[in-house]
Amino acid sequence: MEGLQKFPPRPTGAGDLFQLFRDGAPRTRASLVSETGQSRSTVAARIDALTAIGLLAPAGEATSTGGRPPSTFAFAPTNRVVLGVDLGATHARLAVTDLAAGTLASTQAPLAISEDPERVLSWVAETGSSLVAEAGRSLDELAGVGIGLPGPVDHANGRPVNPPIMPGWDGVDVPGFLHRLLGAPVVVDNDVNVMALGEHRTACPDEQNLLFVKVATGIGSGVVMDGELRRGAQGAAGDIGHVAVPGAPEVPCRCGNSGCLEAIAGGGAIAHRLRQGGARIDTTQDIVDLVRGGDIAAGQAVRQAGRDIGMVLATSVSMLNPARIIVGGMLSGAGEHLIAGIREVVYQRSLPLATQHLRIVTSSAGAQAGVIGAATLVTDRFLAPHAIDALITDKEDT
Amino acid sequence: MEGLQKFPPRPTGAGDLFQLFRDGAPRTRASLVSETGQSRSTVAARIDALTAIGLLAPAGEATSTGGRPPSTFAFAPTNRVVLGVDLGATHARLAVTDLAAGTLASTQAPLAISEDPERVLSWVAETGSSLVAEAGRSLDELAGVGIGLPGPVDHANGRPVNPPIMPGWDGVDVPGFLHRLLGAPVVVDNDVNVMALGEHRTACPDEQNLLFVKVATGIGSGVVMDGELRRGAQGAAGDIGHVAVPGAPEVPCRCGNSGCLEAIAGGGAIAHRLRQGGARIDTTQDIVDLVRGGDIAAGQAVRQAGRDIGMVLATSVSMLNPARIIVGGMLSGAGEHLIAGIREVVYQRSLPLATQHLRIVTSSAGAQAGVIGAATLVTDRFLAPHAIDALITDKEDT
Repeated sequence: MEGLQKFPPRPTGAGDLFQLFRDGAPRTRASLVSETGQSRSTVAARIDALTAIGLLAPAGEATSTGGRPPSTFAFAPTNRVVLGVDLGATHARLAVTDLAAGTLASTQAPLAISEDPERVLSWVAETGSSLVAEAGRSLDELAGVGIGLPGPVDHANGRPVNPPIMPGWDGVDVPGFLHRLLGAPVVVDNDVNVMALGEHRTACPDEQNLLFVKVATGIGSGVVMDGELRRGAQGAAGDIGHVAVPGAPEVPCRCGNSGCLEAIAGGGAIAHRLRQGGARIDTTQDIVDLVRGGDIAAGQAVRQAGRDIGMVLATSVSMLNPARIIVGGMLSGAGEHLIAGIREVVYQRSLPLATQHLRIVTSSAGAQAGVIGAATLVTDRFLAPHAIDALITDKEDT
Repeated sequence: MEGLQKFPPRPTGAGDLFQLFRDGAPRTRASLVSETGQSRSTVAARIDALTAIGLLAPAGEATSTGGRPPSTFAFAPTNRVVLGVDLGATHARLAVTDLAAGTLASTQAPLAISEDPERVLSWVAETGSSLVAEAGRSLDELAGVGIGLPGPVDHANGRPVNPPIMPGWDGVDVPGFLHRLLGAPVVVDNDVNVMALGEHRTACPDEQNLLFVKVATGIGSGVVMDGELRRGAQGAAGDIGHVAVPGAPEVPCRCGNSGCLEAIAGGGAIAHRLRQGGARIDTTQDIVDLVRGGDIAAGQAVRQAGRDIGMVLATSVSMLNPARIIVGGMLSGAGEHLIAGIREVVYQRSLPLATQHLRIVTSSAGAQAGVIGAATLVTDRFLAPHAIDALITDKEDT
């Protein structure tokens, strides 16, 4: 009876068949026949086509149940490479990955994003090219470049939109500039979306609905629903730093309103509170160090920030009904205090139906979430069913 | 340069081509060649296939630019019919529509949802069958049944989950029961999602990101992102009746928490406040009547409810970045007071990037949103690209 809710037909092209292989597990023709309900000849033809474009490869023989053991096939992710770039306010991380976002070479360096964008992007292209060479590959093999920037990005054209901490980047044609230097397609998104994607694909690829929250000097989030990043009408979805916190004091915020989440629970607000108590704090990292060193006031301040963030996340849980909230960003490194505060409020303030299966966890990809997510921006497009079908058509036409 | 952000290949099957026709406009082969970039022979073959399964039909001749005028083709939505069912706490609305959700026959009746579900569903099947006959069609032509219920529904299997106002329905196999009586696929969702879908497809089908808010005795919302309803992990997305309102008094709520949106701004809360001021109010409709009659206290109470709802919607706007908020439900009938209160707070409390193109409007589909949305649950599946491709394959195989 379950099938009644869904209508029977389902996608059946070679590109769709390939999606099954993205989990990395090898499969036989027979197992694909039973997994898809397609005929043996259809499955065999599609495996041939996917092998011809280099995305599948023989993966040895399965255990025989009598007679000649059947051949297995698996995703061949090293056919092409991807450049993932994570630019923060003061750092850059780059990685060359295969098509399964497995790292082949990586590097990181301090970098001031507020510098001239052409200088920054030229450096990215140069460092990226060297990294591709270091991985023993050439730019001809580059399937694309994914890049996360620390500010709002118009997803339709990849240009930053009034980015507060990088004002010189407003409207800059980042994809066009990097394309001219590297010769591959370029996808740009904001850093929190990119981290959300990286966490999704590394920590819980089977979870279709999750919310990633970055807690650092600023606070932001990335929304994954039905397995995809959701960006909203202007790409601003998840931008929760300036929502009002229920029950919080009316602290003035730099945005002009008061009682905003960032003004109450961001790294700057915590530092301000601890300095009033006599602590010597310059950066958000100093807060993390104090908490880890066992400072009670700092631990309490981070836990209260977690509660305040929890008040906003409780509303988000009702709105989005995620299966998982993943907490990342520098302050998530301050032990269990932050997440304990978040859990305390979210589980108390949300409806049972939305929280009965909800898990609230700390980021597991950590600092790598950004570059992996940036590479995934590319592989999701390169390996989309219709993109693969087009590769097959091109191959057959030549 | 714009294409760099998106990867070049795009879907090209007959089912994809058909989607262009869903706007109802007739097209020539030549206009489809330029719209899709496909070859003339490919377009011609796909039009033939879509005509053979009865979803396209010739639509006369376009204006000639010399020589024989070119033939046009258009969506033929009357090929099959759909039954849309909107069940509320105390009413039922049913409509037989074509595949473009155009109404062919409709009816409504009082109905107590708290009654035995088998009795209610048997009545729905009987009334639906009569309505199909009234439209001059037979049950063989029924593409599916869509149904909205006033409570949480597990979208995976179409069964209600602990529905507060219809406790006898918990876990009932609604799709299986109706399928046995009507012989067509059945899709079930909660009433607010169904209204959101109905508003989306009738009022603003080109808007990809919107939030529909129902304000009546209870308060709930439906989330459309990237053109589709988003239901979250357990189908509870949009369930905002019990989120805490920033800055609101700690009024106890029936859910056990206090300061919940419904306890402060729902029809019951407004009625309670007005009764304390001496007004005679039994139902939410009485509030609407008082406001329409010019009662100042009632108008002020509804406007304040709008402001309280606005506090929660401001957070939702930051989270989802919708292009439009559509306000429906019985209290939206109380003139401009409700929406004025919502606008006042949302525009003040949300970030400029998220509100610069945001429109906040009153429902235009009104009471019909439910049945149209219920029918759309079916047509979206029946007319999905892969479903159409499967229909074509079936036709060619016979």
